Amino acid sequence: MPNNNTFGKLFSFTTWGESHGKAIGCVVDGCPSLIPLSEADIQPYMDKRKPGQSKFTTQRNEEDKVEILSGVFEGKTTGTPISLIIHNTDQRSKDYGDVAEKFRPGHADYTYHMKYGIRDYRGGGRSSARETACRVAAGAIARKVLGNKIKVRAALIQMGEVKINPKNWDWKQVDKNPFFSPDAKAVKTFEEYLLDVRKEGSSVGAIIEVRAEGVPVGWGEPIYSKLDTELTAAMMSINAVKAVEIGNGFEAAQMRGEHNGDKMRKDPKSPNGVKFLSNNAGGILGGISTGQEIIVRFAVKPTSSILTPMETIDKKGNNTTIITKGRHDPCVGIRAVPIGEAMMACVLADMKLRHNARR
Amino acid sequence: MPNNNTFGKLFSFTTWGESHGKAIGCVVDGCPSLIPLSEADIQPYMDKRKPGQSKFTTQRNEEDKVEILSGVFEGKTTGTPISLIIHNTDQRSKDYGDVAEKFRPGHADYTYHMKYGIRDYRGGGRSSARETACRVAAGAIARKVLGNKIKVRAALIQMGEVKINPKNWDWKQVDKNPFFSPDAKAVKTFEEYLLDVRKEGSSVGAIIEVRAEGVPVGWGEPIYSKLDTELTAAMMSINAVKAVEIGNGFEAAQMRGEHNGDKMRKDPKSPNGVKFLSNNAGGILGGISTGQEIIVRFAVKPTSSILTPMETIDKKGNNTTIITKGRHDPCVGIRAVPIGEAMMACVLADMKLRHNARR
Amino acid sequence: MPNNNTFGKLFSFTTWGESHGKAIGCVVDGCPSLIPLSEADIQPYMDKRKPGQSKFTTQRNEEDKVEILSGVFEGKTTGTPISLIIHNTDQRSKDYGDVAEKFRPGHADYTYHMKYGIRDYRGGGRSSARETACRVAAGAIARKVLGNKIKVRAALIQMGEVKINPKNWDWKQVDKNPFFSPDAKAVKTFEEYLLDVRKEGSSVGAIIEVRAEGVPVGWGEPIYSKLDTELTAAMMSINAVKAVEIGNGFEAAQMRGEHNGDKMRKDPKSPNGVKFLSNNAGGILGGISTGQEIIVRFAVKPTSSILTPMETIDKKGNNTTIITKGRHDPCVGIRAVPIGEAMMACVLADMKLRHNARR
Amino acid sequence: MPNNNTFGKLFSFTTWGESHGKAIGCVVDGCPSLIPLSEADIQPYMDKRKPGQSKFTTQRNEEDKVEILSGVFEGKTTGTPISLIIHNTDQRSKDYGDVAEKFRPGHADYTYHMKYGIRDYRGGGRSSARETACRVAAGAIARKVLGNKIKVRAALIQMGEVKINPKNWDWKQVDKNPFFSPDAKAVKTFEEYLLDVRKEGSSVGAIIEVRAEGVPVGWGEPIYSKLDTELTAAMMSINAVKAVEIGNGFEAAQMRGEHNGDKMRKDPKSPNGVKFLSNNAGGILGGISTGQEIIVRFAVKPTSSILTPMETIDKKGNNTTIITKGRHDPCVGIRAVPIGEAMMACVLADMKLRHNARR
Repeated sequence: MPNNNTFGKLFSFTTWGESHGKAIGCVVDGCPSLIPLSEADIQPYMDKRKPGQSKFTTQRNEEDKVEILSGVFEGKTTGTPISLIIHNTDQRSKDYGDVAEKFRPGHADYTYHMKYGIRDYRGGGRSSARETACRVAAGAIARKVLGNKIKVRAALIQMGEVKINPKNWDWKQVDKNPFFSPDAKAVKTFEEYLLDVRKEGSSVGAIIEVRAEGVPVGWGEPIYSKLDTELTAAMMSINAVKAVEIGNGFEAAQMRGEHNGDKMRKDPKSPNGVKFLSNNAGGILGGISTGQEIIVRFAVKPTSSILTPMETIDKKGNNTTIITKGRHDPCVGIRAVPIGEAMMACVLADMKLRHNARR
Repeated sequence: MPNNNTFGKLFSFTTWGESHGKAIGCVVDGCPSLIPLSEADIQPYMDKRKPGQSKFTTQRNEEDKVEILSGVFEGKTTGTPISLIIHNTDQRSKDYGDVAEKFRPGHADYTYHMKYGIRDYRGGGRSSARETACRVAAGAIARKVLGNKIKVRAALIQMGEVKINPKNWDWKQVDKNPFFSPDAKAVKTFEEYLLDVRKEGSSVGAIIEVRAEGVPVGWGEPIYSKLDTELTAAMMSINAVKAVEIGNGFEAAQMRGEHNGDKMRKDPKSPNGVKFLSNNAGGILGGISTGQEIIVRFAVKPTSSILTPMETIDKKGNNTTIITKGRHDPCVGIRAVPIGEAMMACVLADMKLRHNARR
Repeated sequence: MPNNNTFGKLFSFTTWGESHGKAIGCVVDGCPSLIPLSEADIQPYMDKRKPGQSKFTTQRNEEDKVEILSGVFEGKTTGTPISLIIHNTDQRSKDYGDVAEKFRPGHADYTYHMKYGIRDYRGGGRSSARETACRVAAGAIARKVLGNKIKVRAALIQMGEVKINPKNWDWKQVDKNPFFSPDAKAVKTFEEYLLDVRKEGSSVGAIIEVRAEGVPVGWGEPIYSKLDTELTAAMMSINAVKAVEIGNGFEAAQMRGEHNGDKMRKDPKSPNGVKFLSNNAGGILGGISTGQEIIVRFAVKPTSSILTPMETIDKKGNNTTIITKGRHDPCVGIRAVPIGEAMMACVLADMKLRHNARR
Repeated sequence: MPNNNTFGKLFSFTTWGESHGKAIGCVVDGCPSLIPLSEADIQPYMDKRKPGQSKFTTQRNEEDKVEILSGVFEGKTTGTPISLIIHNTDQRSKDYGDVAEKFRPGHADYTYHMKYGIRDYRGGGRSSARETACRVAAGAIARKVLGNKIKVRAALIQMGEVKINPKNWDWKQVDKNPFFSPDAKAVKTFEEYLLDVRKEGSSVGAIIEVRAEGVPVGWGEPIYSKLDTELTAAMMSINAVKAVEIGNGFEAAQMRGEHNGDKMRKDPKSPNGVKFLSNNAGGILGGISTGQEIIVRFAVKPTSSILTPMETIDKKGNNTTIITKGRHDPCVGIRAVPIGEAMMACVLADMKLRHNARR
């Protein structure tokens, strides 16, 4: 997109707003008409992402109440742009002095300052993870476009050095613990681990896995809009993400061809009469969906806003040290779970429309 | 891009052509005028990627001679589209029977067939890695746009289970061995390992690292055209790539904030008077270049065209087994090295123009 | 744009909202940073377009007060999206019965209904000219991007059968009469003519001329983003516009080559040392600005919402007759004057950035 | 499009090449698969546009033989990019001295020189009407996408001061005279008129009308990709076009609302049970097709390459005079007839796919 704040080609959304400005919002364009839609379809996803829900996320207290301003008439989408707004309610007037004058190592402070010559430093301004609330809202609409047969879900599978046991994977657990862990047995460990991290004034990274069931064969547009290309870009555009993989991902580098290729067998019970004996491909071959489950994983780095003092420079270029006080997530990766889901849903909705166009 | 075979926004290229068609080519649009350019600027990069150069790559014997058809006048670019063509010379008339009727597990055969209802099966048609020759050609032009101060280089750092030793990294070694290994000591191991793989009629994956030196601070367009987003998409769009990471990538998930954030110090000798004490970020913060080296790594899966028989189905949906005879790379990852470089160069050229636009 | 509600490539805006919804608005993306900007820079242009200012425009009483929600910090643009909102204050609860059930001939009612299967019929919904308020807001920002040296102005030169006398053209007159006529002598005639039209419950069309002074030579991107192509598209996208021409336009069809080509002479006092002896080209050759004044004209059809009964069908496809009561402009062309200016400014700002990108 | 040499969003084409370079060509992307296609489907349209067919067009002798290089397999499109090439055969080595050093008034010579600092002056280089051969080729493919039920045709309706009589309109006549006149009785006058113009070493403009029958209701994407917006841009992007109108166009400015709005009546025999009593709208309301015939007209200026001496400047900025020798069309408008048709077909094919996407 030449419009750098727009994501998607046919099903698209454009986000705007700063962390501590009046409001944030997005404009969803390209949504088909006649889809029943109200705020009640969107709010549950907002609530899932919302900060301040447990002691493990930032205590910023935002309601994150989404309001539809256009594009819906008598309870249905009209095919015109859907404008969504989320008012910022927790804009404490506070002293931003330190962050205003100094650059947090590992944060966008420095690069925004150098690129634009100005930055809204209040709460990270535009580079704040607050922008992702808009993605979640757009994702909720994308789900309506996809329909009920396609199920998009995510879970946290690693936090710092602690990994879940994939054998314990149970989707029903994900919403029952503050970490979105699919492994009930890992919850206690995550809890102790993260309390330690927070106590030390530190932060830690995480790995999220996003899966989509029910995607039909044939979605994805080779060569430069492959389904995996778009999914990877979608995840990498989320704040603090540093790595993305599809299916077996980096592990594929170590594999032999005969083990990596997913063998195929006739199976009249499967959607296209085909069953794959494994899913190393993560449901994508040649950039096109195979009909198997789509599997994406991404790594989130630890937040750079920590209480531990860090060597840095100030706006004048002089050496100094920074401590970021305030309310910060010890593991931003946790809240990346609903965001990853939303981005997957948006990519799929876009791909559905793009595929339909050529039929 | 709505044009699915186009990459880039301001510096862009559109590729076309099938593996065993008459020719392949691309149209580079958006190249600034008055840049000296001839085939001699492009051919060396084509030669680096060209198959059949060692016993470790496919023995397909293509000259890969690139010809400029437009956009250059009296030795200089004119600002109009640069059309490049590479004639296919090695189109042996041969029996494609097996590949025509059956789907190779792990290959795009099946998904192309299901998406389009038709596919040019000769040599993989459009899904062939042959398409990447065009990227390499476009990449050579991108380098001219970037100028000499920006150096884009890549190396193979892992093949199957064999890794290089980063301590032995020497860029000068890369072009001296058939694996593009920066570690001279690893060459012998790679050689023995790959001969074994090939002897067994198998194939193996690899990991490539691409680096760019000299990129100024400020390139990259938040939120959805971040420099890392675009680089990740670029690499993921290459055939057989399954994972991409920036800087420390997946490792960031395990790190603490105070170790992950790259500390900054005043340094009058550095370009912007700033020195970073580490480069975990891979030269990108908030989607914008920091002025440090840009670092990207990607994983290539083993080729699915192997001599080992694989269970699969045919076009009619019946169970069968496939063996892919013919000339195939035991490790396609090797030839991904110049391709990764080219994609990095194209992304950077595009970002340079996009950044310039707003000044 | 695949995003159908977005205009522009590098300097772009995305509009949303329906005539009688909660609000309308737009997101301006791509605006360079460090430009001083406040609501006070935008409001005067809103006021110029605002309905209800004279007896010759609709008596709908909207304040059209624009509010900046993002993208500006400490009085300056930050390079992030500028979100603008205009609340709809005059949403009378009224009986839309007739318009809800029947299609106005010459109006978008029918086509929206057929395309989307649903339409917000209140005040024309999305197809209302109210959408153009957002264009005017974006245009005000575009002017800031262009700077003071570029002057974009428009005037009404014909209403129904009444034309101005070009010899009386005086820019100072334009804002002194309710028709934006540059010919003071034509005002009286326009007034009498339009009062007649309104009295008869009818409406009438108009022709608007937009000019830009100070545009440097070289803006415009051949072949498919020519300056004239983009300007024509910009004007044609305005509600009710049916024709657009550049320079001498349709008259060129009747001319001989030696009279149409604008002769050139050396002139050290002119910006590039060149003076043109005429401006039939309207300041554009080969899609690129010549440095002369840019001249565009467009025709606006009479509004289809009139008191005269018209034969039509209803939603069920049955024959009926419609009379559109309510507050309607007898000549919508009048209010197209500030809109045409705004679109010209937006195209030029976009072209400026696009041209800069390649330097 | 950020790619300035690309037209269309889902059905798109990218053109390249200079008038006297090795070849010209285009890449058609987004064409659905399984459409029967061969050179024989395209060549007739090329022949219609081809120069040197009568004494009324340039005597340049180009075969304009189109060759398909990719995207077609076993006689059918595969959904991959269709690359088309047309070799330039009539590149006489000649003295371009005058055009190389001086700027033709009314020609793109000056603006290309000033924008790019370099231009391929041979035969107009990239700004030559030769580029339009590619549009005609793409248009032939677009017609296949549209199918037989949609008929796109054009005719010349005015040349200089001579107009056809619309009452004599007969589509069958169009291909029977060298002017594409639908009025058999006007042919003789056109002939005498144009011979005079040529004898005088002059040139003259023209008006072309393009119509499309069979377009279903509902195509077109408000607000900024309206059907009329895209059609207008398409026509205005053709060399030498200075004006475009839809339906009654500029005439609408003079009309009253009750005469301009096309009344609707129930009619079970019509496609959607609706009959319009007139077609002032040219088949488009609110940017969306009504199901009526689409009607577009555009004006072509006289070519600037004439034998009459014109005052101009040279590259150094000094005063001089230019005479353009060589083979030139006395009325380029004639050959714009098949080009206008092609652009209409391409816009409609694109709109068809874009509309389909949302169903």
